[in-house]
Amino acid sequence: MHQHDHLRHERIGMPEAVLCGTKSVDQFVAIVTELADTVTEPRLLTRVLPEQLAALDPAIRSRLDVDELSATAFLNGVQPPRPGRVAVVAAGTSDASVAVEAVRTLEFSGVEAQLIVDVGVAGIWRLDARLDEIRAADIVIAVAGMDAALVSVLGGHVGAPIIGVPTSVGYGVATGGNAALHSALASCAQGVAVVNIDNGFGAACAVVRMLSLFGRSPRSE
Amino acid sequence: MHQHDHLRHERIGMPEAVLCGTKSVDQFVAIVTELADTVTEPRLLTRVLPEQLAALDPAIRSRLDVDELSATAFLNGVQPPRPGRVAVVAAGTSDASVAVEAVRTLEFSGVEAQLIVDVGVAGIWRLDARLDEIRAADIVIAVAGMDAALVSVLGGHVGAPIIGVPTSVGYGVATGGNAALHSALASCAQGVAVVNIDNGFGAACAVVRMLSLFGRSPRSE
Amino acid sequence: MHQHDHLRHERIGMPEAVLCGTKSVDQFVAIVTELADTVTEPRLLTRVLPEQLAALDPAIRSRLDVDELSATAFLNGVQPPRPGRVAVVAAGTSDASVAVEAVRTLEFSGVEAQLIVDVGVAGIWRLDARLDEIRAADIVIAVAGMDAALVSVLGGHVGAPIIGVPTSVGYGVATGGNAALHSALASCAQGVAVVNIDNGFGAACAVVRMLSLFGRSPRSE
Amino acid sequence: MHQHDHLRHERIGMPEAVLCGTKSVDQFVAIVTELADTVTEPRLLTRVLPEQLAALDPAIRSRLDVDELSATAFLNGVQPPRPGRVAVVAAGTSDASVAVEAVRTLEFSGVEAQLIVDVGVAGIWRLDARLDEIRAADIVIAVAGMDAALVSVLGGHVGAPIIGVPTSVGYGVATGGNAALHSALASCAQGVAVVNIDNGFGAACAVVRMLSLFGRSPRSE
Amino acid sequence: MHQHDHLRHERIGMPEAVLCGTKSVDQFVAIVTELADTVTEPRLLTRVLPEQLAALDPAIRSRLDVDELSATAFLNGVQPPRPGRVAVVAAGTSDASVAVEAVRTLEFSGVEAQLIVDVGVAGIWRLDARLDEIRAADIVIAVAGMDAALVSVLGGHVGAPIIGVPTSVGYGVATGGNAALHSALASCAQGVAVVNIDNGFGAACAVVRMLSLFGRSPRSE
Amino acid sequence: MHQHDHLRHERIGMPEAVLCGTKSVDQFVAIVTELADTVTEPRLLTRVLPEQLAALDPAIRSRLDVDELSATAFLNGVQPPRPGRVAVVAAGTSDASVAVEAVRTLEFSGVEAQLIVDVGVAGIWRLDARLDEIRAADIVIAVAGMDAALVSVLGGHVGAPIIGVPTSVGYGVATGGNAALHSALASCAQGVAVVNIDNGFGAACAVVRMLSLFGRSPRSE
Amino acid sequence: MHQHDHLRHERIGMPEAVLCGTKSVDQFVAIVTELADTVTEPRLLTRVLPEQLAALDPAIRSRLDVDELSATAFLNGVQPPRPGRVAVVAAGTSDASVAVEAVRTLEFSGVEAQLIVDVGVAGIWRLDARLDEIRAADIVIAVAGMDAALVSVLGGHVGAPIIGVPTSVGYGVATGGNAALHSALASCAQGVAVVNIDNGFGAACAVVRMLSLFGRSPRSE
Amino acid sequence: MHQHDHLRHERIGMPEAVLCGTKSVDQFVAIVTELADTVTEPRLLTRVLPEQLAALDPAIRSRLDVDELSATAFLNGVQPPRPGRVAVVAAGTSDASVAVEAVRTLEFSGVEAQLIVDVGVAGIWRLDARLDEIRAADIVIAVAGMDAALVSVLGGHVGAPIIGVPTSVGYGVATGGNAALHSALASCAQGVAVVNIDNGFGAACAVVRMLSLFGRSPRSE
Repeated sequence: MHQHDHLRHERIGMPEAVLCGTKSVDQFVAIVTELADTVTEPRLLTRVLPEQLAALDPAIRSRLDVDELSATAFLNGVQPPRPGRVAVVAAGTSDASVAVEAVRTLEFSGVEAQLIVDVGVAGIWRLDARLDEIRAADIVIAVAGMDAALVSVLGGHVGAPIIGVPTSVGYGVATGGNAALHSALASCAQGVAVVNIDNGFGAACAVVRMLSLFGRSPRSE
Repeated sequence: MHQHDHLRHERIGMPEAVLCGTKSVDQFVAIVTELADTVTEPRLLTRVLPEQLAALDPAIRSRLDVDELSATAFLNGVQPPRPGRVAVVAAGTSDASVAVEAVRTLEFSGVEAQLIVDVGVAGIWRLDARLDEIRAADIVIAVAGMDAALVSVLGGHVGAPIIGVPTSVGYGVATGGNAALHSALASCAQGVAVVNIDNGFGAACAVVRMLSLFGRSPRSE
Repeated sequence: MHQHDHLRHERIGMPEAVLCGTKSVDQFVAIVTELADTVTEPRLLTRVLPEQLAALDPAIRSRLDVDELSATAFLNGVQPPRPGRVAVVAAGTSDASVAVEAVRTLEFSGVEAQLIVDVGVAGIWRLDARLDEIRAADIVIAVAGMDAALVSVLGGHVGAPIIGVPTSVGYGVATGGNAALHSALASCAQGVAVVNIDNGFGAACAVVRMLSLFGRSPRSE
Repeated sequence: MHQHDHLRHERIGMPEAVLCGTKSVDQFVAIVTELADTVTEPRLLTRVLPEQLAALDPAIRSRLDVDELSATAFLNGVQPPRPGRVAVVAAGTSDASVAVEAVRTLEFSGVEAQLIVDVGVAGIWRLDARLDEIRAADIVIAVAGMDAALVSVLGGHVGAPIIGVPTSVGYGVATGGNAALHSALASCAQGVAVVNIDNGFGAACAVVRMLSLFGRSPRSE
Repeated sequence: MHQHDHLRHERIGMPEAVLCGTKSVDQFVAIVTELADTVTEPRLLTRVLPEQLAALDPAIRSRLDVDELSATAFLNGVQPPRPGRVAVVAAGTSDASVAVEAVRTLEFSGVEAQLIVDVGVAGIWRLDARLDEIRAADIVIAVAGMDAALVSVLGGHVGAPIIGVPTSVGYGVATGGNAALHSALASCAQGVAVVNIDNGFGAACAVVRMLSLFGRSPRSE
Repeated sequence: MHQHDHLRHERIGMPEAVLCGTKSVDQFVAIVTELADTVTEPRLLTRVLPEQLAALDPAIRSRLDVDELSATAFLNGVQPPRPGRVAVVAAGTSDASVAVEAVRTLEFSGVEAQLIVDVGVAGIWRLDARLDEIRAADIVIAVAGMDAALVSVLGGHVGAPIIGVPTSVGYGVATGGNAALHSALASCAQGVAVVNIDNGFGAACAVVRMLSLFGRSPRSE
Repeated sequence: MHQHDHLRHERIGMPEAVLCGTKSVDQFVAIVTELADTVTEPRLLTRVLPEQLAALDPAIRSRLDVDELSATAFLNGVQPPRPGRVAVVAAGTSDASVAVEAVRTLEFSGVEAQLIVDVGVAGIWRLDARLDEIRAADIVIAVAGMDAALVSVLGGHVGAPIIGVPTSVGYGVATGGNAALHSALASCAQGVAVVNIDNGFGAACAVVRMLSLFGRSPRSE
Repeated sequence: MHQHDHLRHERIGMPEAVLCGTKSVDQFVAIVTELADTVTEPRLLTRVLPEQLAALDPAIRSRLDVDELSATAFLNGVQPPRPGRVAVVAAGTSDASVAVEAVRTLEFSGVEAQLIVDVGVAGIWRLDARLDEIRAADIVIAVAGMDAALVSVLGGHVGAPIIGVPTSVGYGVATGGNAALHSALASCAQGVAVVNIDNGFGAACAVVRMLSLFGRSPRSE
């Protein structure tokens, strides 16, 4: 029943990605099998479940480049390289799966990204030690759950574009990630933009949209 | 008691703005008077209340460039021009105050912006008629309340960076703007970034962060 | 303990359906067994769980027409045909189970429905390609999760009655379907009516109520 | 800045209505003045505030047909009559303003509606006394706040299409209308469709969409 | 670590009941084993999990009178009979486990209760057929999920004390039972009192408190 | 438009009360004037606003027995005395308006009630000093905002029926009264029943329903 | 009706404070007048409204030491000095009224406190400049709205006891203070304790409880 | 990827604890293995899952001191003794796992704590019997779910510092622990501080922060 969207790259510069976790195993197998049979350009799969992968024909499964931590897979390799340097900064180890989803989506889009983990605000001296690295990036993705204080602290330290990604890591009032989301949206640091909870993929896509700014002069009125 | 932050521009490329609406009239008068006495660079005031303006010394009041619809004021003019073309697109007339807050913040930051209003999805033919104008911009700010469907529709039409600004316009489930916020964050259009409800200022600051990308080559590893 | 409601069809023109998912396996088996023994007219079962079906006497199980994707089953066939043409439009593959619940309920009620999937707003060119088909229907059911922008876009394009069905597909702010529900209820498109999250059955019943309008002249005062 | 939408009636069979309550007095005056100067067909204004009306040019004000209870106004009369009989049923006096908004929108659309008030479930004998009148209608709009039990009870008694309108009347858990909204959406009566809280206008528009079914045969596949 | 509360009956006329579902299997076994060894009066266990029962010493397990549907168990029989006639009325089969928890708690307390199921408002003729039975009771417990309209309808029909028990049965906006809870609390029927979601035990205890009124004359000032 | 409900007393033993605060001044005046002209039995008005009273014909106003603190009024006196002793216990002075609404409703219903204020748990020695008075009552109404701990503490001390009334007094997490409501519903004291936030009227009506138990023997099966 | 609590100081070492903002003007005047007439020890009034002060007998009004920004007043001076050094740190000018409520409560309790304002994380260099001062305190109260990132950053820098006070300053997702509250509770900095939104008084009382630790040796088992 | 934080103890007097439950089994094994290989000081693990322990190298597993009820583990023993006497008071057996997490964290920090369980307010006589023990402590941790009334009652009885820990024990409105959290934050007892739901670890850390007050004189200005 799924209709592939071959026009998306042409229209908005980004290929269609398949969000797998909300689909049944049967739907997943049908979609990926059809893609493998009919598409030769790179395709990105996100939130792939182990039982979905296990149900694939082994010949198709072997064509996928799978990363378990981020639950992502590439079909037919990745896109050509694009310029730009992105820092993906995560507060804690528990945020790593979301951060790596962003890194992998950037890698798929031909963008190299540096991953910096375990620099949460509770041990703020660790963040201080990495600030020069972060300031060297063109764009920063800040991944944090709980109080998401990392997003605001980075926003106060760095003038580059910052995309905050709240995560659902945590318990009690942090369950589900709304505390982190609201903290990031209400950040006292000006000009921080935010994507949905756990949406490392979306943060990377926002970066891809921005990278297009490099390739041309600003438009004049 | 207020301590001005003269280092902010140097650190993150943006000056401190004063969010006036959450301050008492006495606090507002003290802060603006001190700024007027001691600062010669441009300063931006947002969410200025009429009773706050009325309480100012007329000599100081006359030095402010005030816009009533957006409740913004400039002290000491605006910043030097920066290149880049921004479209600020608002779904309805009721969203105009937030959209104009973004336009004014951009103007303050030396960036020209085009305001496009009344192109909500309910009359989608009106949006279609303006798409070429919107596609001509480097960056798009999409301002919408209620269902915020405009944000997603623009995200599906345009490959440029998009900042969604949900507004608190509406009633019933739309009261306060959470319906619009959640709709924008859950947008099926990939790579849309979002700021807090009614935060036209923040959306413009996110744009200013991005404009810095124009001025230099992407950094290499 | 369950008391069947044989009068419902006579009273409101629709038979009682059994919502199975909230019942224990024992309750399910008792209800369906009694229906199979005592009722000869068509009966609809919704949200049937695999473990409930597995617990049935095979003789009774074999009398059911089961659809796995929508988790629906018909006992004793379907109702006589009714005129009218309904389009059931779903944003993505992940919404298909809810959309098919609507299609199956219509089929049970004697109404033919056309299913149109993967026309979400993120790839709005795909929706544009199907608009003529959708405009040809008497009534439209729009099924969408996440931002539910499809509901508003259809409401802006089509003058026929539209029933929005928000789905619980999604994560982060979209978890559980409230973002989609609020978006549909706050739709800027006028006259869109909405049913509970994931309630494909209810949307189809709303259609059945409307189809009665075909059969008679408007009442005069 | 407001751009009128002269194409809406042609596209979806309903004229643009102006939701006034979310607009500033200046915006309201500008919009209505322009409409009065340039449009000769009927136009509907909803949620008009007294201070907005007071700010109009008296010559324009005198051309409006205003109803205070529902805060609605007609400019240039109403649309031609359409067939169909609608019952607008309200639980209590406090729900009347929303119910009359529906009645006025129907009147504007050329549809006559019967208003039945004070038949809430707490005094269910009063509802029983009016059931024959309600059953005589083609379509029913049910307006109720608090527990919105009226919506479910009507849904159990009547086979016609029912649009539930939850209202924000009430206090404590009923504040804002979410209790009524959730009750209406979770109605155990099948096929009840719902609009946003206090949205009498939207319920009437949903009815107008349905009335189009009268005018033609069901479409065949 | 658990300290039994042998004084509760003396103080407030009700024995301590053990809410088992929130305890670990080890905690459950320790508590019930100690009770079985040291207490000879009746004790009530609620929300007993199958794995908890399975972990008990069979000799102790055999001393329990267990009801699976309501997940309740009696140790050492029940309390002496008390006068009074209670109707426990449940909207649907899915509400039966909560309703039976109330019936079992009453039975444990020496009170006989009549269970009336499947009289939800969607098929209101079924409720009408049972009203005389319900009116014959001294006190009514009304158990309903979804819109909980049954609670209000009973409140409009019956003058006896009514305890509403919202249930967590349902999906979408009804998930978790808040829609039913808010509907019951906002009931337009006056004087309906409510207990926590799914708290059949609490409703029965509220009845036990009331039954004490039978045994004595009203107190004079 | 209001239709008075003269049958309510006959049906459920309680007269219709008019909840005034949700009605417009015009609606209020119309309803009370008609009641004053046509009804000779006692009628209760609740949540009467000062501007509503001020708009009445002075002759009618003078026939009302008004209590400002509770915003209640009696028309045509009160109902005949009924036996029973009720304690209305309020945690703080700020809860007094709700507590007095309960006392006035009881007075209207012919029941005498004792008001005990300022016995909140923060100064638990003050509650201890009044426990004997409270234990002497047949039924207890417990009125408390904030943490509503008073409701649970009373439930642990007293075996009589207890109706908890959460109030909207408080700030921060207590704003609106949900903290108090949830605390009362989740009370660890068994058998406490609850009414809507600030609903002193409803608590008194629940008492009136219970008082009927005094007048007759328990019904036998 | 108010009963003063003269035993509180003896029991828990803190006098009763009167929370005025939730009381009617009449209730306020009665309480303060009685206190002024009968009590000679210091008493603290919080959240005093201007209209409450204006209604007092001028003789009593003149005996109050009122601070407008924090809306506090002292009757009969303050308590004897207690040792200890407290830093009250506020993110922004808008948080000052809450911070000063804490300072004034400490002053009332005989504790000197240092107020440090405008050190929010957006300009983190300003906080860095004040860290030595803050580290010199025995106990820290951190007052912040919006993202409340200040609370976490201080928790990462300082080993002393920290009480976080979220404030209701802000708009959009920060409205009401829940974003700040959840951020503070989910703080990644370990051992931060939190009080209710805007509760500067409560934070100071928590400090007073702690100061008792100074006066004695730790208790041995 | 995890970077250990060896500076934390030096900076804020508390070692880094590893929150294990939010980490994958692979992440857990990598972190604990590295700690076991490289660190010789005591380390605390919290929310350890059985499957995480099972995946460890047995040699490393045998070096851990594990407590199952609280899901905590010590690596390399505990810290040196610190003075001070702490009472950890829990309302019910179901709250014990959280209470023991606090006790274990204190034990790890060299602080002895007394655990007092089953003194909830429903059987308030049991609490009264233990009050002298509780009053003998320097600091009190109060652990309670549901209505968390225990927190307020202790706050009214004891002048020592109190840390409230709401728990997620309960059902209906108590699900997830927000009812308990809000009740504790809105406590009518002054000066009670609160940590996140189920955060026994955080409460113990707050105590450790306070214990530092014993070791030195109050600082003078």
